Parts: sequence; structure tokens; C-alpha cells
Amino acid sequence: MANKQLNDLLGYGDLKIYQMKDSFCFSIDSVLLANFISIGKKSKKIIDLGTGNAVIPLILAYKYFNVSIVGIEIQKKIYDLAFESIEYNRLSSKIKVLNEDINNLSKIYPKDSFDIVVSNPPYFKYEKRSLTNESITKTIARHEIKVTFEEIVKAAVWLLKENGTFAFVHRPDRLFEFLDILKKYRLEPKKIQFVYPKMGKECNAILVECIKNGNSGLKIISPLYVHDRDGYTDEILNMFNRK
Amino acid sequence: MANKQLNDLLGYGDLKIYQMKDSFCFSIDSVLLANFISIGKKSKKIIDLGTGNAVIPLILAYKYFNVSIVGIEIQKKIYDLAFESIEYNRLSSKIKVLNEDINNLSKIYPKDSFDIVVSNPPYFKYEKRSLTNESITKTIARHEIKVTFEEIVKAAVWLLKENGTFAFVHRPDRLFEFLDILKKYRLEPKKIQFVYPKMGKECNAILVECIKNGNSGLKIISPLYVHDRDGYTDEILNMFNRK
Repeated sequence: MANKQLNDLLGYGDLKIYQMKDSFCFSIDSVLLANFISIGKKSKKIIDLGTGNAVIPLILAYKYFNVSIVGIEIQKKIYDLAFESIEYNRLSSKIKVLNEDINNLSKIYPKDSFDIVVSNPPYFKYEKRSLTNESITKTIARHEIKVTFEEIVKAAVWLLKENGTFAFVHRPDRLFEFLDILKKYRLEPKKIQFVYPKMGKECNAILVECIKNGNSGLKIISPLYVHDRDGYTDEILNMFNRK
Repeated sequence: MANKQLNDLLGYGDLKIYQMKDSFCFSIDSVLLANFISIGKKSKKIIDLGTGNAVIPLILAYKYFNVSIVGIEIQKKIYDLAFESIEYNRLSSKIKVLNEDINNLSKIYPKDSFDIVVSNPPYFKYEKRSLTNESITKTIARHEIKVTFEEIVKAAVWLLKENGTFAFVHRPDRLFEFLDILKKYRLEPKKIQFVYPKMGKECNAILVECIKNGNSGLKIISPLYVHDRDGYTDEILNMFNRK
């Protein structure tokens, strides 16, 4: 891991995060998701499925005092980044990471043991042509090779308490498919936000918050733009506290 | 119909439209829908299911030379407004209205006879409490008393040619339901636009364009805001050509 580097997690105090330039950096979608989730006043047990270098746990641990977070990461190389980031930031009392397969979690955790499940899943279906010239680490993070969205949802339903929250981000071209899967597993979407790269462009990400066995009642909240003519929008700069 | 009045259809040349102040005026959602539909270069046979006072046919006839449009309206009082508006604007060569039940259309038109079906349907499910103190005319226009969305979709599928377009507007709280119905009838959503009353507010209308037996491939185009701090947004003023 010669190319491992320690970056500032901009906007989150002194937090730093380990990345690997050529094979794994966190995505802005994870930052959007960490800022999209509703965390109430009561203390919360949170689990992040496919945590990568733990950017979502780090942000949540920084923003909220009342959370304890588990991050699950199947790729050892990336898990190591997550582990070292948590150690570096002295957050091991709030965040734990596990180098584990999401499909095994029902053997590790009892049913109904978390308040919130969060996931920035692999966006792309796996096909032979998915094996591009990018690194295998990156390919696994982005394609449904080790876990599909349905498997993540199945794990989420197992892990979540009744009326617990499942929050995730996905791509518009998977919209109908992920809605069908949520329906099948009785996760009721309550809040959706569409994300656009800039005004006049098509949506390229969707943030969704569901309630396990929740009642119907969807809010489509005001859309989020990532860029405007001057660079990042104020909403994004606010997430990075750099306005 | 003492309260019938002739209004300018602002932004569409000299077009005028009959309305009834206390029981039927066209909605802005119909104007949005008429401006959302993709009309290609080839001449098109269009049918508007639940045409009201024919605002959608009037706008389409004004904007496009290559269209012939049928409007279906079950309520005689509103049908009369539509008929008189079309006569007044001398558009009877391009627009016909029928005082008919959408559920009867499969007996009137052969299968696959239109290129485009458009509809601003009744938004609300019918319940006893739907009978508010508004007029019965308005109640029928707004509630699923005479026709449900599924019945409209069924009629649309009958009327549409293979790969024909079905365009409609509906409310966010019916999103999952209408997606299920579209799927059931093999109408593939290709273009969706979310409409927000203003920045920071929740979505209150969704514009959808589907293709009969189309391939998958959804675009969520840039959202539409109706108001900004100064009144109507430029996008809306453009629809009324009054910028």
C-alpha cells in the first residue's frame, strides 16, 4: 500500500482520513448521505454496510455525540484504511469496523439490533464488461460482485429494529428496481432527495430514507445541486463547513 | 351557467378559454404537462383523457401545426366549455371533444389508434370525506369518482400505438402506486420531472412520459420550480410567453 495517503476530511474539524489514490477514495455521495440521514435526540446504534474507508462513520461520529457506529467492509485493504483512520482520529470508542461479508451479518448480529442502517452500495450491476482496466479493489467497490443491492436490503431488514431507519444512495437508472426491492422487504420510503450535478442537468443520484414496516407517506424534499457557475453550491460547501 | 366567463389563455396568442369561476378552471399542472410532452416532427394523433375545458388541446394546437387532438370529458357542463372554447378559437379542424366516459373508449376507438395519450387525472382517491363543500363538478374533476388512474392507464394502453407515448402529471404521494400501475401495463417511464412550488419546498407534482412496451432507460430531467422570490419563475413565465 505504497500509495496510501492521509487526507484532511475537510469541514469536519481536525478529522483525517486514509485513502489510496489509485484504488480507493471516498465519494461525495457518501458525504451527501451522511448529511441526509435524520438522527434524532435519543442515542443511536448505527451500522454502515460497505463502509469503505469509513467516511460515513467518521462524519456521523463528528456531528453527533449520541451515536455508536459499526462499519462493515469486505475488502481487507480498504478495511485497513478505515481501521487506521479511526485509530488516527481516536474514535475507536464510537466507531468499530469489521472486515466482513454483508451476507454473513445475520450470523453475527441478532435480529433487530440497530436503530439505523446506512449504505452507499455498489451502483453497477456486474457484467463481464464491468472488468474494466480499473483496479479490482475499485471494481468491487463499484460493482455488485460481492454483494447486490437486494442482499444489502435483506441484511438491513435483519439488522433493523421495528420502525428503524434504512438510508441509502443509489442511481436514477436503478430507481424502479430499488423501489421494488424496498417494497418486497417492507421498507417504506419516507424521504427522497434527488441530486443534480448542476441546474439544467439530469439527476445523477437519489438519497432515500425508509422505515422498516413504516406507514406510507412520502416526502420528496427540495432537490440538491452539487455545482453552480462558481463551483460547489452553498449547500455542498456547508457540508464541508467551508463557506 | 351564469358564471361562465371567457378568459385569455395568456401567452398563447389570441387564444381564449371558457371557465366557470365557482366550479371549473384549468390548473397550472395542465399547462406544465402541455409544455412537458415531447412532440416530434411527424404529424401526431393525440388524445387527452379528462380534458376539462380543453386547455391541453388548445395549447398543443397553438404550439404545433402537425397535431390532431381529441379531448375526452365526461362532465357535460365542462365538455360544453371545451366545445365553446374550440369553436370560439376556430380550432375545430384540429381539436375534437367528446362528452364520453374514458371507460368506454375501447368501444369507440380501435386499438392502437393514437400516437400520444395525455392526461391530467383526478389526483385524489375517492372516500366519503372527499365530498367536501366544493361543487360536485369540481369534486368529480379532482377525485377518482368516475375514473381511477388505473382505468386511465388501461384506456391509454388500448388507444396507443406500439411505442406510443403516454404523458401525465400526478402527485408525489401516489408515486409508488402509479409506478406499479405503469409496470403492470408495460408503460415504461422514460422521462420524469419533479415540480416544486419554490426552492426549499417539497415536490408537489410529478410529470411523467412513458413509452408503450418501451425499453428501460429513465431520465430524471432538471426540476421545475413554479415560484421564486419575485413571483413566477422564468421557466413558468416562458410557458406563458410573458417574460
